[in-house]
Amino acid sequence: MAAEIVNPRSESADHTGQEGGAKPLDSLDSIDPAFALHRGGKMAVQATVPIRNKDDLSLAYTPGVARVCTAIAEQPDLVNDYTWKSSVVAVVTDGTAVLGLGDIGPEASLPVMEGKAILFKQFGGVDAVPIALACTDVDEIVETVVRLAPSFGGVNLEDISAPRCFEIERRLQEALDIPIFHDDQHGTAVVTLAALRNSARLSGRAIGELRAVISGAGAAGVAIAKMLVEAGIGDVAVSDRKGVVSADRDDLTDVKRELASFTNKAGLTGSLEDALAGADVFIGVSGGTVAEDAVASMAEGAFVFAMANPNPEVHPDVAHKYAAVVATGRSDFPNQINNVLAFPGIFAGALQVRASRITEGMKIAAAEALAGVVGDDLAADYVIPSPFDERVAPAVTAAVAAAARAEGVARR
Amino acid sequence: MAAEIVNPRSESADHTGQEGGAKPLDSLDSIDPAFALHRGGKMAVQATVPIRNKDDLSLAYTPGVARVCTAIAEQPDLVNDYTWKSSVVAVVTDGTAVLGLGDIGPEASLPVMEGKAILFKQFGGVDAVPIALACTDVDEIVETVVRLAPSFGGVNLEDISAPRCFEIERRLQEALDIPIFHDDQHGTAVVTLAALRNSARLSGRAIGELRAVISGAGAAGVAIAKMLVEAGIGDVAVSDRKGVVSADRDDLTDVKRELASFTNKAGLTGSLEDALAGADVFIGVSGGTVAEDAVASMAEGAFVFAMANPNPEVHPDVAHKYAAVVATGRSDFPNQINNVLAFPGIFAGALQVRASRITEGMKIAAAEALAGVVGDDLAADYVIPSPFDERVAPAVTAAVAAAARAEGVARR
Repeated sequence: MAAEIVNPRSESADHTGQEGGAKPLDSLDSIDPAFALHRGGKMAVQATVPIRNKDDLSLAYTPGVARVCTAIAEQPDLVNDYTWKSSVVAVVTDGTAVLGLGDIGPEASLPVMEGKAILFKQFGGVDAVPIALACTDVDEIVETVVRLAPSFGGVNLEDISAPRCFEIERRLQEALDIPIFHDDQHGTAVVTLAALRNSARLSGRAIGELRAVISGAGAAGVAIAKMLVEAGIGDVAVSDRKGVVSADRDDLTDVKRELASFTNKAGLTGSLEDALAGADVFIGVSGGTVAEDAVASMAEGAFVFAMANPNPEVHPDVAHKYAAVVATGRSDFPNQINNVLAFPGIFAGALQVRASRITEGMKIAAAEALAGVVGDDLAADYVIPSPFDERVAPAVTAAVAAAARAEGVARR
Repeated sequence: MAAEIVNPRSESADHTGQEGGAKPLDSLDSIDPAFALHRGGKMAVQATVPIRNKDDLSLAYTPGVARVCTAIAEQPDLVNDYTWKSSVVAVVTDGTAVLGLGDIGPEASLPVMEGKAILFKQFGGVDAVPIALACTDVDEIVETVVRLAPSFGGVNLEDISAPRCFEIERRLQEALDIPIFHDDQHGTAVVTLAALRNSARLSGRAIGELRAVISGAGAAGVAIAKMLVEAGIGDVAVSDRKGVVSADRDDLTDVKRELASFTNKAGLTGSLEDALAGADVFIGVSGGTVAEDAVASMAEGAFVFAMANPNPEVHPDVAHKYAAVVATGRSDFPNQINNVLAFPGIFAGALQVRASRITEGMKIAAAEALAGVVGDDLAADYVIPSPFDERVAPAVTAAVAAAARAEGVARR
């Protein structure tokens, strides 16, 4: 995304010759509507009970509130009934992998976390609070989130770099009995699986017949690979910058070694392009580019999901020459694979039944519900619904809540 | 406040004979309107920008948000202009000293923290987020709040037991450049000073002529003593359970030893009752009771501020027999000394000018502004305004902002 970014400080320096001179804010706002919209932030807190007079105050605050506190001290589960805990999610980041910008630190990540928070509210009716942490050590992040947890019904991890994100999520899931969900992994995987299911349905093929290649072995790539295997994909190979992840490579991290153990049944080696020859599905979550020849070498009727933003790994115009279904991460092409289709409903469903965690089954159920919204309107340019389709969040919410009950992690 | 509390679990056990049986929630709600009001919590998050379509989404979230993130990464102060950071306060507790209930833990403290948060919004227009921590160690609380700080414009410490609260506040003030304010200390002190100023004005006396006795050497007592000295009180003695805090006692904590060094110029020893003989002002923040004889022994035209809740140290009917001005912490008597008169405006003023801290001068200015609202209507039963007086928060906000500028801690 770096190419699109206006750096206000260096621009100002260019035009005025004053090195390091900051641009006045009204000027920033007039340069770019994104700044005007962000002025003052994008969210606020509101009271949901009236405080008009002494009587209201004596119920919402002292002395009335003391009776509610005492009841919770006696019967801890009541915290979910009589506070906002069970409807509020912490959106936690350390600012190390923000969008495509990389490690920009906690303050600079806040606009994304606020954006996430208002998407939670808008699409899932879930309250969410941005928590950008001034620490990047895995132990410190884990202990900090554990200490915060009494105030929150769930934790959405966001924009934390791999491979730290995997350990942080695992340890928090072990330590806490509320949903912990790294959206860059699982949100992306859920929406990708939904798009894949509908692409397969459109082509009259079973998931088990398909061979997929994923470009990118970071948070999203690893999670998508796991989910496709869970969903019964025929085979899936993952490629990082050095080529296909396979057990015979001696440069693999722990995470990639585990990845090699359950992917790439065919034992492919070599480059991403090598792996694409004859493949049925390309899934790009890398930010790199794929040569047209490699796309041309894929199997007849292939699916190309080129999700890098703002520049897809394969431009849709090129992909359409060879592929039966093309999806991207961009809103200005059909079939946008956008996490906002998943995370609001997934948390809304989990919180609704006070799930202790978000299981694989709940994620699969979310993907199926999301795919199901498309229904009979299924077409090559409509394998995934729009984020603004009002059927999406209720369908995902209901499916996730039902799956949580079926899997025994619901607490009401 | 314990006397007023309905313990729903033991009640249920009493009436049904089922030991430990939880009362159904609808029953709790019908027993007590405080439960009905608290159902589902008292607050929510709301978006302050529209997300109606793809264009909105592309500004509030990707790709537009990336430009704002990059600008903040380049010019860190912009986080205050383009996120909600500079308008949001963390209301942080560890649940160790909640109201008069004591150490009830983080979850059970949440209704109070939510109450505080909505009072911030209602009275000061300040967004606030409850953060109840699952740790009580001083080092852990300090490091946790430091890690959270990038997301917040200020920290309101709440219901943390003494003497830990003093060290936590001091260390956070040293570590962070945003306002850190322990309301149980300073909020109470500001409102008490305002009431004292107006009581003195009503009696035609100068603060410097008055000798005060404070019952209680916890968070509120220590802060009130400091503030009265700062404001030029003639003399002030503080009494804990063992009597007047004086330098010759060998059982003093560090905090009380410091207290002894700047209070009790008269060198009083002995009991609270001993100290009250001839005193001009009684300030109760202890929860104990004071014998009528001791109140009778105070100087002519005394001021009795008996702030324990729900049972004042001296009942107002008794106090009125001897005192010229009587104030309590209760809303059902005149002259309620209530922190909500101070903290919303103090934070609103500090945030408005992006103060790096809340100085003594800002607190004194808050007290003066609060006292000033009473104006020409000053009377024995009106030395402090009502929390619902709409002039209060704007007056305190403006005074605090001006004082921050005058003291050089404002950053805009």
